[in-house]
Amino acid sequence: MSALLPGILQADRVALGRALTLIESYNKADRHLASDLLKAVQAYAGGAKRIGIAGIPGVGKSTLIEALGMHLINKGLKVAVLAVDPSSRITGGSILGDKTRMPKLARHPNAFIRPSSTRGTLGGVTLATGEAIVVCEAAGFDVVLVETVGVGQSEIAIADLVDLLVLMVLPGAGDDLQGIKRGLVEFADIFCINKMDSNALLARQAQADLRVALRILQTSADVVMCSALRNEGIEVLWETLEKYWDTMQRSGELQNKRSAQSERNFEHYFEALILMAVKSVDKSFQGQELSPRLRAEQLVERLFPHLQDQ
Amino acid sequence: MSALLPGILQADRVALGRALTLIESYNKADRHLASDLLKAVQAYAGGAKRIGIAGIPGVGKSTLIEALGMHLINKGLKVAVLAVDPSSRITGGSILGDKTRMPKLARHPNAFIRPSSTRGTLGGVTLATGEAIVVCEAAGFDVVLVETVGVGQSEIAIADLVDLLVLMVLPGAGDDLQGIKRGLVEFADIFCINKMDSNALLARQAQADLRVALRILQTSADVVMCSALRNEGIEVLWETLEKYWDTMQRSGELQNKRSAQSERNFEHYFEALILMAVKSVDKSFQGQELSPRLRAEQLVERLFPHLQDQ
Repeated sequence: MSALLPGILQADRVALGRALTLIESYNKADRHLASDLLKAVQAYAGGAKRIGIAGIPGVGKSTLIEALGMHLINKGLKVAVLAVDPSSRITGGSILGDKTRMPKLARHPNAFIRPSSTRGTLGGVTLATGEAIVVCEAAGFDVVLVETVGVGQSEIAIADLVDLLVLMVLPGAGDDLQGIKRGLVEFADIFCINKMDSNALLARQAQADLRVALRILQTSADVVMCSALRNEGIEVLWETLEKYWDTMQRSGELQNKRSAQSERNFEHYFEALILMAVKSVDKSFQGQELSPRLRAEQLVERLFPHLQDQ
Repeated sequence: MSALLPGILQADRVALGRALTLIESYNKADRHLASDLLKAVQAYAGGAKRIGIAGIPGVGKSTLIEALGMHLINKGLKVAVLAVDPSSRITGGSILGDKTRMPKLARHPNAFIRPSSTRGTLGGVTLATGEAIVVCEAAGFDVVLVETVGVGQSEIAIADLVDLLVLMVLPGAGDDLQGIKRGLVEFADIFCINKMDSNALLARQAQADLRVALRILQTSADVVMCSALRNEGIEVLWETLEKYWDTMQRSGELQNKRSAQSERNFEHYFEALILMAVKSVDKSFQGQELSPRLRAEQLVERLFPHLQDQ
């Protein structure tokens, strides 16, 4: 039983913050504590609507999350915001989940914002965020919004964490879907054309174009328009999300999706743990003159003779 | 002793093609044959200048490789062209190393062109290309040109295969280095501003800007200009590359760099082999109700009890 559990169940900020830091830790002792914590919160998990918000920098993710989050809070819901930034180790990180860019949410007692981790974690930022969702659910949050920079790999990663993924685009998307790669479209459940205030005509055209494209691609994704800045279209966005979520829940698709995600995340963890374990293996042995492949083969053979005939 | 060795040593096209296919194979029997082959070619490896050519699509990589390759062949050298396309599994692949885009080289008996592998391989396309370089060296090629699409991750990957990396840019690079991420600059040894014919003034300005930027970033990278299409600047590019390479060889830096690359590639192979070995492990066990992390921890503990205290 984790000492943090009572605090988490009361949505205590300090306990929540400590729990998420623990989950992100590389430290061996912390990892044991994190495992205990996850075991303890498991019984209280699964209750939130898990929504991903992806899109290129400048598309208005923070503004939308601020608007959507306050909309939900005004409906009496509790909202957590988490951020995934898989690029942070290379680029130094975009500031996702930045509290100063979500001033109302950041101040509200029924909201909890966790900025993006700036360091890689066991199995990557993504897996830690999956666990952070579970902790937020145990803390009683009704909706968990997961924000990510839409740079390809990250939407795919986030898609394995959330029930529904919103891909934000700008008006003027046109034929090329603003460079959204075809393979990524399948991961989005809702396209949200933001900044419709900047050019309503272009936004409407983009919506029509996107709908045609999605029909051709035979996806069931829907397209909504909004202006996060002017707080327009937020209600329609949420109604669309709720409708999708309810349909998924009734059909059993939600449970299937979460089970499949859990299975994939388990595989990722398994691989991450194996790699972490073998990192500290003594690799200094004869054979420096061999090619990398041959040296690796010999080392694996020496360390794991029973794996060789798999 | 591999049966392919005699053919490879004579630079026989069929033998070379078979060897590279073998290296890319996932098949268990093929992997044994590939290991034997690598053992056999090892003694003949290391003799080529290994040059990477990176840049965004449209920058003129194929045209430059055609021009540079023919320049080298006219100097009496033998040239191999390999391609790395780490994105090929997701995007379906850009056609790199395409023979039809290098018509003169493709026809010349002293050149060998291997288009990009369209499938992932053990440890990724990159490691297979590293081995392909070694095979080409055994076949007596003096220069191995490795082409890659410059999309960030791929230059970093290619940098671990080659002695020198040329990053191609277009005139008009300006202040933002055309979106070249700062982290990537350190991997490039030579910046080549191509298409200087399209706007000589802009090209000269870009060269000046780049030199300032590189000085500020304290790298020793040089900047050259060329027009691959008009066959201009190719000689200067090669002289610059040769000068760099000779300096590295004399100072011992070349050997150090190759050793460090070999070490990293060994680690990558080691991890890839471990992951491949555990892929087929029976993962169906009690604990479906646990979180992905806890299930993974329990499985690792069961499979590798001796790794637990690392």
